[in-house]
Amino acid sequence: MNLYENLATQLKDAIRQGTYPPGEKVPSVRRLSAQQRVSQATVVAAYRLLESHGWLEARPQSGFFARHPESAPPPARTSAANDGPCAVDVTELAVRLSRNTQRKDLVSFGAAVPHPDYLPLKDLRASLNRCLRGQADAGSRYSFPPGEEALRLRIARRAAESGCHLGPDDIVITDGCQEALNLALRAVARPGDIIAIETPAFFGTLQAIESLGMQALEIPSDPATGLSLDALILALDRWPVKAVVTVSNFSNPTGSLMPDASKARLAKLLAARDIPLIEDDIYGDLVHGRERPRAIKAYDREGRVLLCSSFSKTIAPGYRVGWIVPGRWRQAVEHLKYVGTMANATLPQLAMADYLADSRYERHLLRVRRTYADNLARMQAAISRYFPSGTRTSHPLGGFVLWVELPEALGMDTMVLHERALAAGISFTPGRLFSPQGRYGNCLRLAAAMPWDSRVEGALAVLGGMAARR
Amino acid sequence: MNLYENLATQLKDAIRQGTYPPGEKVPSVRRLSAQQRVSQATVVAAYRLLESHGWLEARPQSGFFARHPESAPPPARTSAANDGPCAVDVTELAVRLSRNTQRKDLVSFGAAVPHPDYLPLKDLRASLNRCLRGQADAGSRYSFPPGEEALRLRIARRAAESGCHLGPDDIVITDGCQEALNLALRAVARPGDIIAIETPAFFGTLQAIESLGMQALEIPSDPATGLSLDALILALDRWPVKAVVTVSNFSNPTGSLMPDASKARLAKLLAARDIPLIEDDIYGDLVHGRERPRAIKAYDREGRVLLCSSFSKTIAPGYRVGWIVPGRWRQAVEHLKYVGTMANATLPQLAMADYLADSRYERHLLRVRRTYADNLARMQAAISRYFPSGTRTSHPLGGFVLWVELPEALGMDTMVLHERALAAGISFTPGRLFSPQGRYGNCLRLAAAMPWDSRVEGALAVLGGMAARR
Repeated sequence: MNLYENLATQLKDAIRQGTYPPGEKVPSVRRLSAQQRVSQATVVAAYRLLESHGWLEARPQSGFFARHPESAPPPARTSAANDGPCAVDVTELAVRLSRNTQRKDLVSFGAAVPHPDYLPLKDLRASLNRCLRGQADAGSRYSFPPGEEALRLRIARRAAESGCHLGPDDIVITDGCQEALNLALRAVARPGDIIAIETPAFFGTLQAIESLGMQALEIPSDPATGLSLDALILALDRWPVKAVVTVSNFSNPTGSLMPDASKARLAKLLAARDIPLIEDDIYGDLVHGRERPRAIKAYDREGRVLLCSSFSKTIAPGYRVGWIVPGRWRQAVEHLKYVGTMANATLPQLAMADYLADSRYERHLLRVRRTYADNLARMQAAISRYFPSGTRTSHPLGGFVLWVELPEALGMDTMVLHERALAAGISFTPGRLFSPQGRYGNCLRLAAAMPWDSRVEGALAVLGGMAARR
Repeated sequence: MNLYENLATQLKDAIRQGTYPPGEKVPSVRRLSAQQRVSQATVVAAYRLLESHGWLEARPQSGFFARHPESAPPPARTSAANDGPCAVDVTELAVRLSRNTQRKDLVSFGAAVPHPDYLPLKDLRASLNRCLRGQADAGSRYSFPPGEEALRLRIARRAAESGCHLGPDDIVITDGCQEALNLALRAVARPGDIIAIETPAFFGTLQAIESLGMQALEIPSDPATGLSLDALILALDRWPVKAVVTVSNFSNPTGSLMPDASKARLAKLLAARDIPLIEDDIYGDLVHGRERPRAIKAYDREGRVLLCSSFSKTIAPGYRVGWIVPGRWRQAVEHLKYVGTMANATLPQLAMADYLADSRYERHLLRVRRTYADNLARMQAAISRYFPSGTRTSHPLGGFVLWVELPEALGMDTMVLHERALAAGISFTPGRLFSPQGRYGNCLRLAAAMPWDSRVEGALAVLGGMAARR
């Protein structure tokens, strides 16, 4: 190929890949000549060639515009967001489920993402606007670890609600709870180390453990009371466990709530063995009742609990504002945050701090707590009505996810059910994602974080019917 | 201690730590009673005790307000941002230097952070406002990997400037270039693996390598032409190098620019050995001349180059918008991004995409390129004037950092010089930070990313004088 054919091929690829969609202007002859360091004559020759093949349209006085020749296939797109049967890869599936939450054509019980109606978006926008006006250039500068003090102060004050007595300097801001969990794991353990975690457990945590080269040791848990301490003690006696990870309040996926007495006992028994506890309390603010449960951190006397949380389930997932209270690992966590992502985006932190400065968040919580309780009750009723008899569910006292066990005798694998449901426009999370061993093939997690209507009710009826047919 | 004394101690700690600064209202008796699950009488007793000790002030009809008793020491603050001599820890120093950029009392040649005057903040704010108006709730949702398509499209189009032909699906958005580098390292290497990197090299990359349990192998580089390919080949013959990392254009700290012929040769020789190349091109857009240099990625035929970059040096560090073009490691990188930080903040991506949609960025670049070239020329002139004779500097053709070598015969350790300079209100980056072996004790990096005035000129005179006195 000579020079202008080469250039034409490159540009054709750019049009085919969507870099220049049909109807968009491509670079001027002068610009492309400068970019590519070829003569303008070469660019003109390439453009004329593409025009003759139907990839460009010349418009007098305006330049060249991308088009697709009638015979060309439509531009290729990322296939990950599309569906249909495929080889099942748990991590791939997790990402796909997450993306599916944004598909309007699905009834999404899949990812644990609140519907926009359940987020205080208007108030938050007002806060962001106030920050933009008041601190014009603040958003541009790096917000190095530990992050914006105004926000850390708000988080410190709210921590009293969960029985923790913190100052702003006890807190490091992170890109959501997921980064907080990663930082905690990296601060206390090394590749190869064993991490004890309740089962079933949030797949994001399981995958973080795996991606760091650590090993997850599954500890039985109760759908009502969470991690079994007796089982944990047996495991600690048998294995060199480096750290324990647990969702103390309204765990994901079962919604379990660890009683205060167990929290105190867990903190004490790990302190006695000098084992750090990574506590994920992302759902604690979504208690259905009046009293926000305590964090295990409230019983931590020596800084051995690394408390991780975020506002992603309560205020705005897209702001990526989470935090960690790293206790005695503060310096290690700050350093890992710095070398890992350097800083959090500044404006989202400032907007969040402004939003938290008055009682708006409390009022918002009162509203959504009741809504999620109602939704879960409706979901449980619908499951009783539509799902195969013998189906069991968890009974969460907070949060918005429900754990559903189909009768084992049915022999239904919810991975298979998931593919069928997707074809019918319904998504959920198959149970196997919640176990590194691939347990819970007969289980599924349903999120009840969208407004309840006949479409939702109908989708549960369809899903229940499918669940009965192997 | 009984219950109310206990409560009083907790609250006193909260006031002392700054959770409630003097003059701030503390929780009402009713609220604290609910939070702490104690009777209102207990709270009242605790508050009266604190009042009697001077930690609270009761204001009729308003409640209780925090104060500090006259005899109490002022509240403790994070000391990391303060200075004075301390045991030298390279990672700690790097974080401290970064924070120092935000101290108005310093003349900061330290961190490579552009002055706000050199960032297009007004235009960017306009873009953010437009996004807030136009896509009211967009900012709230998760932006799962690979990130916002509108932004990836803009980045794909601009990539042609550096000779790369990309589609939006070739790109994964990251939390700045630092996360991109981490993802690239994790995708291609494991703990224990050897990573070849030019020396001197950006400390953020060196620390990322170290924090991931990998080993950095220093390859000699030239302040003008960058990584020595001959030295690299010798190293590859000798060591089982798993990946190579290099800043191709206007490296940090020397400002070196790899010639096109070397870029082509490097891509080819690594492809022949099946070794991935991690290319950091964060400074490429800041070329001083007219022609934006190519990325090594432009010579990559088989997807073996992982190109990392961001807008942190050109548009807004605080937006945390970076990206990676991971080539054949796309799936691994998307997965690691998901399990590491889950998603980037949404609004900063949308605002950046809007800002990049017209020619504002090009006009901005024309402006700052000239400014940085001018500033570096002034800085070199000042060094000739004020620094000890025999001092040498790099001669960058882009970016805004200068590498300075003091005459070795002086015997000056720039770590020591740094502490003295800080005491005089001047910061820079000591050379040792740029080597895992602690080389370059006689070197320093100066950033010329602030408006030039007599204060800056004066600070260089002071620094030059200090450098001469051992």
